[in-house]
Amino acid sequence: MISDKMVSLVKNSSTIRAMFEEGKKLADIYGEENVYDFSIGNPSVEPPIEVKEAILDIITNESPNLVHGYMNNSGYEDVRAVIAKHINTVQGTAFTSENIVMTVGAAGGLNVIFKALLNQGDEVITFTPYFGEYRFYVSNYDGILVEVSPNKEDFQPNLSEFKEKITAKTKAVIVNTPNNPTGVVYSEETICELAKILEDKQKEFGTSIYLISDEPYRELVYDGIEVPYLTKYYKNTVVGYSYSKSLSLPGERIGYLVLPSEMDDFENVSAATNVANRILGYVNAPSLMQRVIARCVDAKVDVEIYNRNREVLYNNLTAFGYRCIKPQGAFYLFVEALGGDDIAFSNAAKKHNILIVPGSSFGCPGYCRISYCVDYSKVTGALEGFEKLAKEYQ
Amino acid sequence: MISDKMVSLVKNSSTIRAMFEEGKKLADIYGEENVYDFSIGNPSVEPPIEVKEAILDIITNESPNLVHGYMNNSGYEDVRAVIAKHINTVQGTAFTSENIVMTVGAAGGLNVIFKALLNQGDEVITFTPYFGEYRFYVSNYDGILVEVSPNKEDFQPNLSEFKEKITAKTKAVIVNTPNNPTGVVYSEETICELAKILEDKQKEFGTSIYLISDEPYRELVYDGIEVPYLTKYYKNTVVGYSYSKSLSLPGERIGYLVLPSEMDDFENVSAATNVANRILGYVNAPSLMQRVIARCVDAKVDVEIYNRNREVLYNNLTAFGYRCIKPQGAFYLFVEALGGDDIAFSNAAKKHNILIVPGSSFGCPGYCRISYCVDYSKVTGALEGFEKLAKEYQ
Repeated sequence: MISDKMVSLVKNSSTIRAMFEEGKKLADIYGEENVYDFSIGNPSVEPPIEVKEAILDIITNESPNLVHGYMNNSGYEDVRAVIAKHINTVQGTAFTSENIVMTVGAAGGLNVIFKALLNQGDEVITFTPYFGEYRFYVSNYDGILVEVSPNKEDFQPNLSEFKEKITAKTKAVIVNTPNNPTGVVYSEETICELAKILEDKQKEFGTSIYLISDEPYRELVYDGIEVPYLTKYYKNTVVGYSYSKSLSLPGERIGYLVLPSEMDDFENVSAATNVANRILGYVNAPSLMQRVIARCVDAKVDVEIYNRNREVLYNNLTAFGYRCIKPQGAFYLFVEALGGDDIAFSNAAKKHNILIVPGSSFGCPGYCRISYCVDYSKVTGALEGFEKLAKEYQ
Repeated sequence: MISDKMVSLVKNSSTIRAMFEEGKKLADIYGEENVYDFSIGNPSVEPPIEVKEAILDIITNESPNLVHGYMNNSGYEDVRAVIAKHINTVQGTAFTSENIVMTVGAAGGLNVIFKALLNQGDEVITFTPYFGEYRFYVSNYDGILVEVSPNKEDFQPNLSEFKEKITAKTKAVIVNTPNNPTGVVYSEETICELAKILEDKQKEFGTSIYLISDEPYRELVYDGIEVPYLTKYYKNTVVGYSYSKSLSLPGERIGYLVLPSEMDDFENVSAATNVANRILGYVNAPSLMQRVIARCVDAKVDVEIYNRNREVLYNNLTAFGYRCIKPQGAFYLFVEALGGDDIAFSNAAKKHNILIVPGSSFGCPGYCRISYCVDYSKVTGALEGFEKLAKEYQ
């Protein structure tokens, strides 16, 4: 009785989410301490103390009807102003509250911008490997996701193929840097080239192509690396941000879109995101969390905890014979599947109570993603299993 | 550059939301105390104290990674179990956590169930007057909203026309009781008849027709009236609930769907709502608020405050010559527009700094909705304006 589209969606539902549930089942059987669940990006590091302090203070001292009430569908103006100012301070931009739309996480933000922009059959280009949910976010609005094949050298985007895949139907390009699942940060050189290609193609086709930058991992970077802010390189950029990772609040569904005033058709895009937020049933981003964010823009989780996991996993896994790029951001390692078949390999790992996600879920077979946003004890505890697994393939 | 559908959506955006914004502008000009904004259903009554206590206790004593982290996309199992048990206690039902799906308010819940059920061209029947957002929730999934004309005698649904409008394409019927905008509660007699019609039509067409009961106002009732619980009358019922009004938390976006186990295709509908919650970008209902709700299922706002507004407005307006049904629930009066033209009448009201919403927004021209979820001082303060307005039409 469910819709035809849903029948296949239910059948092929998220591998990642299925693993998350499977991990809980394995934990029931073998004991939580003997299961190494690297399947999901559910932060293990606690939110910074500022979050707790902000909630307690707001709930104690602010008017409950303000804190829990309706506001403009795009969010509280004062909250949006604080966020704009914060971005300006860090990035040297010149945003105001008008450029910020509060959303139900980045997932909500991406749905809002796609609802605002896409006609049936419009194309959205993404670079493999990519966060698999993009497929649904685009198809929700009858768009077509066009995949650019991976550059397995360094997982920077494959720009020559990208150039060929842009057509008159290309409405948007979605990038994710620091990247899920590779952990790679797109270099400034990459961004400049990508922007140049888009400028040229806009002229060639007489179209506007929006660059959507999905960046929940912006704050999670290592080795002092800089993540270029894309609105400074290309004016038709929309930033989708989330506090899920930077403040460890994934369940709270709080994030925002940045719509630069200089983008094509700014007034209409802005109005459309306001309407889309409402009619998609979000109505608005959760109100208390909006007010919490306004007090926590300078806070972030202790990235050093993830860094330790990264170093230990990377150093040990490569010593065991695994091959992967050392990630510069996010909390993922994207390793080559031993034996070449990512699904067989992730099943083999499961026999060691290690849960990892096949690269096929990210449009990139032959690899597996290891989510290292877990307790350090899980990282060290899993090493023996990873070593045995490697030996099985020798 | 925005999508074709969005162009008209932006142009004809919500009258109610536009008024909400206009009210704030008028307040800037005339002073907040001189503007009588009856346009939006933004509760004026404070959330019950249990909400504050729950938040403070959870934030102080529970693990932040649990409180703010990911959970099953359908919500925390313990929270869903508490809600199921609460409904069972009040309604004598036999739900478990499996029957509850936590959603981003009722608006999120309705989008989730429509995404789960609707194929392109499927029909969803509703009774005028109805909450105008249903148009968008249905068209988001390429469904067709079929309106049954109003029964202006008592605003119980027009069941003879309803029967005629059910076709083989009817996938769902959406009802809203206590009703926005009339405040009318559908009687048990109405519900029994409606269920009988649906049973017969399901047999006639060999289809399943889901009855979606949108009930954010269930707890806001007066004069001791009972609101029938629809799952007890018709097994293919889906309840969409929200705490926006019962706990005055509209900005927090927290609610749930009830999917009875005995409904047709339960397993698939349940799985589809889980997937829809995720891929529509909600991912899950806000996590802290889920945990707050589990501690507040027995709490509710002080309905007596709304009741006083209701009595004073109803008694005075009818004395001034306005005509309307005395509402038994929600916080709306649906008055006949003096002069017959609801848009002209609401504009005339605006000259007295009184903001009310034309019935056209609810598919029922010739009436206006007065939202009385406002401070009592606004109710008494507006009486002079309402009286003058009535005199203008004599």
